Amino acid sequence: MNHIQGGVCAPKGFKAGGVHCGVRKNKSKRDLAMIVSEVPASAAAVYTQNLVKGAPIYITQRNIADGVAQMAICNSGNANTCNANGEEIAWEMCKLAGAAAGISPENVIVASTGVIGQPLPIEPIANGVAPLFAALSDHGSTEAAEGIMTTDTRLKEVAVEFPAGGVTCRLGGIAKGSGMIHPNLATMLVFITCDAAISPEMLRKALSADVKDTFNMVSVDGDTSTNDMVCIMANGLAGNDIIDSDDEDYAAFCAALNVVTSTLCQMIAKDGEGASHLLTCQVCGAKTTKDAKLAAKSVVCSSLLKAAIFGADANWGRVLCALGYSGADIDVWKVDVTFRSAKGSILVCKDGASIEFSEELAKEILLQEDVEVLIDLNDGDATATAWGCDLTYDYVKINGDYRT
Amino acid sequence: MNHIQGGVCAPKGFKAGGVHCGVRKNKSKRDLAMIVSEVPASAAAVYTQNLVKGAPIYITQRNIADGVAQMAICNSGNANTCNANGEEIAWEMCKLAGAAAGISPENVIVASTGVIGQPLPIEPIANGVAPLFAALSDHGSTEAAEGIMTTDTRLKEVAVEFPAGGVTCRLGGIAKGSGMIHPNLATMLVFITCDAAISPEMLRKALSADVKDTFNMVSVDGDTSTNDMVCIMANGLAGNDIIDSDDEDYAAFCAALNVVTSTLCQMIAKDGEGASHLLTCQVCGAKTTKDAKLAAKSVVCSSLLKAAIFGADANWGRVLCALGYSGADIDVWKVDVTFRSAKGSILVCKDGASIEFSEELAKEILLQEDVEVLIDLNDGDATATAWGCDLTYDYVKINGDYRT
Repeated sequence: MNHIQGGVCAPKGFKAGGVHCGVRKNKSKRDLAMIVSEVPASAAAVYTQNLVKGAPIYITQRNIADGVAQMAICNSGNANTCNANGEEIAWEMCKLAGAAAGISPENVIVASTGVIGQPLPIEPIANGVAPLFAALSDHGSTEAAEGIMTTDTRLKEVAVEFPAGGVTCRLGGIAKGSGMIHPNLATMLVFITCDAAISPEMLRKALSADVKDTFNMVSVDGDTSTNDMVCIMANGLAGNDIIDSDDEDYAAFCAALNVVTSTLCQMIAKDGEGASHLLTCQVCGAKTTKDAKLAAKSVVCSSLLKAAIFGADANWGRVLCALGYSGADIDVWKVDVTFRSAKGSILVCKDGASIEFSEELAKEILLQEDVEVLIDLNDGDATATAWGCDLTYDYVKINGDYRT
Repeated sequence: MNHIQGGVCAPKGFKAGGVHCGVRKNKSKRDLAMIVSEVPASAAAVYTQNLVKGAPIYITQRNIADGVAQMAICNSGNANTCNANGEEIAWEMCKLAGAAAGISPENVIVASTGVIGQPLPIEPIANGVAPLFAALSDHGSTEAAEGIMTTDTRLKEVAVEFPAGGVTCRLGGIAKGSGMIHPNLATMLVFITCDAAISPEMLRKALSADVKDTFNMVSVDGDTSTNDMVCIMANGLAGNDIIDSDDEDYAAFCAALNVVTSTLCQMIAKDGEGASHLLTCQVCGAKTTKDAKLAAKSVVCSSLLKAAIFGADANWGRVLCALGYSGADIDVWKVDVTFRSAKGSILVCKDGASIEFSEELAKEILLQEDVEVLIDLNDGDATATAWGCDLTYDYVKINGDYRT
């Protein structure tokens, strides 16, 4: 499998773009993004589990219930959530986007990210849709990725090639996460495109399975947003025989999907609000995958460990503490903990107890940007990985600043 | 019910004290505390649910399995957790304390709080126990409360009088939480004394029921410590008829217990690491008590809301978001949210959507030290209260500073 350029425009038949339309006041910031497929595509999405859901979530759920979509539109700067007329506005966005592209509004995926509880005016979007559609190009992925960013400091796009049905297929994605200029919620939005032919059923199955190991294993601050969505459109223009059963082409598709999603996960965690470190926790030796996942997720979610990583403090006691309350079935007297980065690796806890180690080397390892916590539970064969970031002054600053 | 002075020494027949023995290097900081009853007392305790437990937890569990204890000893500066010889050291502390007081080591409650994964030397404690016992007094509650403090900035003691069985009984408590000079874990320790006569069974029942509404509803940072413990000793010296059934005296006892524990909860939350605000969330109108508790706890645990309270930002969207992922069964379109403090109260969300309000007044309200978030779910009669604090630069500083 090869990494390639082009993001969501890497797969055949997809164009994308992003413009400033005026939802945001800052004119130098794109706030409206669009992705369009030449032909109708199989589509699937997964959504936030939060009971409070952004209005666009409901419209998108309805629109792709039939497993088909042809375009996506997304604004940043306003989440269109907790608004009495929210669904009306989201549906209006679909109608405007569909009209510009000559596509039925039922085939539009719609999303919003930004402040919640403030009515979203439709005028800027109505004015922006036509010029945006006119400016779409097959190298517009980056503009679209910019259009969905909020306090993101890094662009998040990735694409890969993979073989299926005797031809080369491509799969690309863009993402935003996590923060906003006037922060309210760290919405995570991911748009994935693919030119493989795959049935809506298999696409849904692949995405649902994948997110359990990828996006559900990311945490920046433990707050589940109201607007999270991961969606995928696969338009079949690669010319492969359609993937409609659990065969080797499906496996190739899932592997490509996993490369794209896990790469985006790392990009999102690394760009967590205020983050200065990407924190990856790899658990092995667990009794079950469920135990491995509970353990890994608990470690990357611990405020105390996150603060220690900010301080490059090899405070393994906090790792043990987080394992202990994770809900995973573990034998604490079998746990080994290693810290690893580009500067090397160091065992800091053996059999659940302290061992001698060089604090100096540990500090050097933890001062690197990408830090891994490797945990061997020595109690089975199951493994899991979770991604997070450190807790910094800037997280507090970004989220504590006056909204008004 | 009257509030009275004296903390854990307010009930008849209890002496307490605290000294510096040398577990900590800073000689001006007491690091060893003791509480002794004149006579054996009914005893009960609840412990951390963390699978990684401090060694003293295991010893105390064993010692008060019979429902009887007569003294408590606690050091600060070292948690005696994740140490191969931890239980041996904790048991040695019981033997030393018991020998000094002429009490069986099986009747000693033992606790530790501090850095984990560092062997606890017994020498300072062996040297400190005799002078500490000699210095115990019936006005030594404050010294004992100081002896268990770590990064605590406020002393936490409280006592009340209540009538039971025709006589006046007293109940007092001290607590520590939450932080450490070389922080590892924000252990919460609570010692409660009472001079009422009550059977061990009823004492256990009362404490177990109470903590569900009090200590289990406090959160500073979501990290469940390895060493948390709440214990109570009731020595019967008030002279009341023993409370051994679910009668009105038991109800009076439970009411007194609840005043002491909920007061200590507020003290602990207000003194959370780095905290500048006490955050109280009161939920009413819930379908069930379970829903009310899930909702209240979720709100005080939200990193995003905690950062907003630090910034005095009336960001009610984060309250809705936390309600939405709380797991509580709520109708989001019925939710009202009010912020309240000494400066007044202000409705900021009605029926799950935005309403106009004065940002200026909201800010003034949120700038107060004690801030309440009042949530009416308008969907039933159940209520709950949870306590937390804001998320500040100082939390990151305290927990991100180099341990080494």
